[in-house]
Amino acid sequence: MKTKIITAICLVLGISASAQNVNNIQMPELLNKNSRQTINVPNILGYQTLKCDFHMHTVFSDGIVWPTVRVDEAYNEGLDAIAITDHIERNPSKKDVAGDDNSSYEIALPRAEQKNILLIHAGEITRSMAPGHFNALFLKNTQALDTPDWRDAFAEAKKQGAYFIWNHPGWKAQQPDTCLWWDEHTELFENGMLNAIEVFNEKEWYPIALDWCMDKNIAPHAASDIHGINSEMYNLKDYHRPMTLVLAEERTEESIREALFANRTIAYFGNNLAGKEEFLKAFFEAAVEISCFKEKGKEKSYSIKNTSDVPFFLSSEDKSFTIPANGETILMIKNDAENMYAIKNLFIKGTENLQVSLKLQD
Amino acid sequence: MKTKIITAICLVLGISASAQNVNNIQMPELLNKNSRQTINVPNILGYQTLKCDFHMHTVFSDGIVWPTVRVDEAYNEGLDAIAITDHIERNPSKKDVAGDDNSSYEIALPRAEQKNILLIHAGEITRSMAPGHFNALFLKNTQALDTPDWRDAFAEAKKQGAYFIWNHPGWKAQQPDTCLWWDEHTELFENGMLNAIEVFNEKEWYPIALDWCMDKNIAPHAASDIHGINSEMYNLKDYHRPMTLVLAEERTEESIREALFANRTIAYFGNNLAGKEEFLKAFFEAAVEISCFKEKGKEKSYSIKNTSDVPFFLSSEDKSFTIPANGETILMIKNDAENMYAIKNLFIKGTENLQVSLKLQD
Amino acid sequence: MKTKIITAICLVLGISASAQNVNNIQMPELLNKNSRQTINVPNILGYQTLKCDFHMHTVFSDGIVWPTVRVDEAYNEGLDAIAITDHIERNPSKKDVAGDDNSSYEIALPRAEQKNILLIHAGEITRSMAPGHFNALFLKNTQALDTPDWRDAFAEAKKQGAYFIWNHPGWKAQQPDTCLWWDEHTELFENGMLNAIEVFNEKEWYPIALDWCMDKNIAPHAASDIHGINSEMYNLKDYHRPMTLVLAEERTEESIREALFANRTIAYFGNNLAGKEEFLKAFFEAAVEISCFKEKGKEKSYSIKNTSDVPFFLSSEDKSFTIPANGETILMIKNDAENMYAIKNLFIKGTENLQVSLKLQD
Amino acid sequence: MKTKIITAICLVLGISASAQNVNNIQMPELLNKNSRQTINVPNILGYQTLKCDFHMHTVFSDGIVWPTVRVDEAYNEGLDAIAITDHIERNPSKKDVAGDDNSSYEIALPRAEQKNILLIHAGEITRSMAPGHFNALFLKNTQALDTPDWRDAFAEAKKQGAYFIWNHPGWKAQQPDTCLWWDEHTELFENGMLNAIEVFNEKEWYPIALDWCMDKNIAPHAASDIHGINSEMYNLKDYHRPMTLVLAEERTEESIREALFANRTIAYFGNNLAGKEEFLKAFFEAAVEISCFKEKGKEKSYSIKNTSDVPFFLSSEDKSFTIPANGETILMIKNDAENMYAIKNLFIKGTENLQVSLKLQD
Repeated sequence: MKTKIITAICLVLGISASAQNVNNIQMPELLNKNSRQTINVPNILGYQTLKCDFHMHTVFSDGIVWPTVRVDEAYNEGLDAIAITDHIERNPSKKDVAGDDNSSYEIALPRAEQKNILLIHAGEITRSMAPGHFNALFLKNTQALDTPDWRDAFAEAKKQGAYFIWNHPGWKAQQPDTCLWWDEHTELFENGMLNAIEVFNEKEWYPIALDWCMDKNIAPHAASDIHGINSEMYNLKDYHRPMTLVLAEERTEESIREALFANRTIAYFGNNLAGKEEFLKAFFEAAVEISCFKEKGKEKSYSIKNTSDVPFFLSSEDKSFTIPANGETILMIKNDAENMYAIKNLFIKGTENLQVSLKLQD
Repeated sequence: MKTKIITAICLVLGISASAQNVNNIQMPELLNKNSRQTINVPNILGYQTLKCDFHMHTVFSDGIVWPTVRVDEAYNEGLDAIAITDHIERNPSKKDVAGDDNSSYEIALPRAEQKNILLIHAGEITRSMAPGHFNALFLKNTQALDTPDWRDAFAEAKKQGAYFIWNHPGWKAQQPDTCLWWDEHTELFENGMLNAIEVFNEKEWYPIALDWCMDKNIAPHAASDIHGINSEMYNLKDYHRPMTLVLAEERTEESIREALFANRTIAYFGNNLAGKEEFLKAFFEAAVEISCFKEKGKEKSYSIKNTSDVPFFLSSEDKSFTIPANGETILMIKNDAENMYAIKNLFIKGTENLQVSLKLQD
Repeated sequence: MKTKIITAICLVLGISASAQNVNNIQMPELLNKNSRQTINVPNILGYQTLKCDFHMHTVFSDGIVWPTVRVDEAYNEGLDAIAITDHIERNPSKKDVAGDDNSSYEIALPRAEQKNILLIHAGEITRSMAPGHFNALFLKNTQALDTPDWRDAFAEAKKQGAYFIWNHPGWKAQQPDTCLWWDEHTELFENGMLNAIEVFNEKEWYPIALDWCMDKNIAPHAASDIHGINSEMYNLKDYHRPMTLVLAEERTEESIREALFANRTIAYFGNNLAGKEEFLKAFFEAAVEISCFKEKGKEKSYSIKNTSDVPFFLSSEDKSFTIPANGETILMIKNDAENMYAIKNLFIKGTENLQVSLKLQD
Repeated sequence: MKTKIITAICLVLGISASAQNVNNIQMPELLNKNSRQTINVPNILGYQTLKCDFHMHTVFSDGIVWPTVRVDEAYNEGLDAIAITDHIERNPSKKDVAGDDNSSYEIALPRAEQKNILLIHAGEITRSMAPGHFNALFLKNTQALDTPDWRDAFAEAKKQGAYFIWNHPGWKAQQPDTCLWWDEHTELFENGMLNAIEVFNEKEWYPIALDWCMDKNIAPHAASDIHGINSEMYNLKDYHRPMTLVLAEERTEESIREALFANRTIAYFGNNLAGKEEFLKAFFEAAVEISCFKEKGKEKSYSIKNTSDVPFFLSSEDKSFTIPANGETILMIKNDAENMYAIKNLFIKGTENLQVSLKLQD
């Protein structure tokens, strides 16, 4: 009500010129201040760590928002790149929505350029299992993938230079019993049409899919698959949306493409990271800084600082402790013997954590 | 990560049947728990106080969400009734959106019925000033209002039994100098085509429009006029969205219609209420309970409890204090002399607050 | 920065009188607005449901705050009554803190009277197991309980008319293997010196202790046992602190005493209630309102509204759903057959939930 | 309730060994996760920017918490150094609190060493105006300052090597009309006993005191002067507590001492910084990174990123915009003409903002 106070003062002083102020009082305190926030993840191994979500929907398939909303969400949340992946084969709103399978990309593109968000032209090949749902990225004409036979759709995408992601492999609607790899996936993989797998989709994490990625050298991804409103769906106060971290030479579409085909990805979901050991190790080491601030005989006190948004939950036989996100903890060591820890939220296999040895010297 | 712990236990125990559990781990902690919350405002004067927002947009004009989103937002925020008021004359998305001016109502209706939200068939007559923008409620065919001459649109709406709200009268795009009442508004008012005025729209409050309402017996309204996403636009942690409180016999569309034409409304925006003195007085008295808990000579201590979501900012010559929303404060009185207060956030005129005398007896 | 804007206007207008305003700018936006909030729990069975925490510490034993802080915390959080229960036998700060075992009560009392908080004179008999730690309420002179033999301390308390609560019976420091009932507890119970048990203390819940309460007709309690700062310790954004709900005739110390000795208590911790079936049933029925709003053949839709701060997690063989706190949910029933539910967060035994039959008629 | 689920599974499997688990269920979700958070301010001009609060109280004067609480608060909030400055001459709790004027330092010191917080030995010389209240830092024996004549107290402090801060110079209790500099302050200043002034105290900002600092080369400070509980007093969700940023060679007490006597301080309160132009300029330049991402004729789009917790509110004749804390904004420039801005929340004089020229090249 600040403006009213001003108004009051002005009235007391007998000012009449500011009539519109009296008659139109702005109350910005009722509104949220939305602005782009930074996602704190370190650049590693000489690459930029780009924050990407390659799976989302709009009113042009079964989503409920206009394509520009996806750009605005990505901008506010601090992402670098997105792909709108409307279902190619079905569209519940079609009666009331015109356009074609390229429309969501075309509508969102000017906003993406304005907001400095990299927008990847894409679409979701939506088939029954096997092979299930696949996102095809870097398309030129999504409409051309709308074919009766799924093999034709994949072939067309491949012709356009697509990068293929197997979406939500353990989704119960298509894999009611468990998360299985089918012959069709072998076929696709061997033909270069299975470049990545979502080890995490929306709110589901498929550990076995990470094993497949690590065994066959496939890129692990995480994605929102958002149909609704991202800030309502996700608890963004405590976590970021699920995303794929891409280790790219530069912040360009070309660099992302190169990095994706080179399997330089980390799946980031909740407080978890899943990916190659070398990537996770580099991430941890770049994020964490350790220094000894007190020494008394064999007893030493260390300050361990974390500059990233990812907390680290460390555990050894003796003790468990957390290095909080964007924060610091103190570790007291009675002797130098043991300093190997498993980081319980960093996965290098479906059920295997990154092991680290803390550098506890002064 | 609770499910992983379970998983671990199960694995230790050599259980293999739960394979899908291992391969598909749900992480609901990443999601918001969205549910319908209660808006605490008292029923007064024998009426139910219905929470209504009669002004909002969808992709069927220049909004960015599908019509069902407006129902879901209203449900979660605790509203009773809404009207989707897409612009009749213009539609920036028309190239890509099919349907007509009735589509948003028709698409939203089944969801409204499912979620027990009263959905009023409506549209926004969007003309230059004068007369500016008007919402027409209780329409039968919004499309019929798409006429070249604005007088024809109003006549058609009137024929359909419409209730007319003058929207954002002080909007600077149409009233650059100040908030003015034009001859056209006299014409409409005299012909029963100006039943209500938004004294608050989106984030703007027009005190002078409340004076018009009180002088001419017009119903004051408050509305979101939301085009984007409500929970992103508004600071819903500290405030509700702006809304019109309707004092209705029952929670039905018919009752709302009767109450609106009878001018039984209160505009509710931020922490403010604007409306007839008798309504605001009844609201305050129904929300507040006072009791003396300590007496020592002429010094008495009172507990003042507020069961509503509206705090009350009281001010007399001597002192200012707040009765917090859904809370309680303590008032210590040294003698009985003075207990008249202005409630700075309750407006019975554009610049006039409700005056109350606290009943400070034991 | 509102005041600066005003300042700027005033300066422009050449006003010099408000020099102190320019030189002393208040910035209340940097501060929290602390006020008493309401805990929404229904009055039941003709009683007032008083919100009580009978276990907490100050600098007069091993707590870290001044006694008045406990009153202020209770006031802000909406409690009705508290007992400060400083350890009688030990006091780590004693070198630097004067006073005796009555000091914390005496210092807190004037503030409690000022803030309308009922303050029960009390102390914690702090002995090794068995019998462990006991709070004695309604004391006249806590100091007199500082005796070498624990039986003397209990006898003295009994002489003063005390009500005895067995604190944290499953605390691992005293019950390393499991939560056991010792012969000493039988002795105390048979001599009327074991009136209540904390089935919940701080962050620990002892289901077996609820069984003891139900089997022997002992009052179940929940308490914070706070030593630090309550708002830092507890997640007060999502939960209240643990507390004992006391079903009292009136909001007076005498009524609390009568109700406690009559075993009219419910332990309330997190989202859970633990206590006698009749109390929990009455609580649920008073909090919840069900109405049918849609009927289509055998399919009916019900709105279920909850006016309390306790959500209800219902579960039957067919379905699970939540009635959110201070909110509403919709239940769709395909036929009338099944409407028996266990409420997973209401405990009438350590491992037994309240069963309810929803009244699903229109 | 996660552990209960596990329990349930175990029970089903007929495991009995985990009895204590069943009888003692931990509910950590009811608690806050408190950990040390990072305050993001850049190191500048070759110095470390240390976060310091040199003014606070405990139960050893009129505060309400034990001295260790001040260390814990400082640790959790990310501070580097604090001084506990209990009033030397008065102590409302003295009847019940033993110890002397050094006690709060001595009690807090072991905790400070354990938590790596630099604790400065200090006390508040609490006299009527003039000269009012002064903090003396780097004392050896605070007790020795408890003298009848204030000049003796200052002389004793000076003998101990003290650094003197004039506290809350505009406090209305001592300066009812306006914020004045008295002859006594000239005397102290000329004798090296007025090294710093709080331009901000608790929630009050004294612009004129910043003018004195800049005119006479006195160090500007900001301090909490906290008597209560810091996290309850301050809105720590949106702001840090008020603090003095000290530009020190190293993170040691000696370095802080050197930096303070060299006037290398910035007062940081709310979103505001107050201090020497060169310091604020260096702060802004170290915090902000600008890059051009789009160019179309004379129209260029810049991304402006801010890595600090301080937002910057920029304003020129043409436009106003905010560079959000830990975030990013986009600036579109139609031609290169104008890029001088005042930063409305950075003060180099009481009513003068830092001016910056944005480097808008690609």
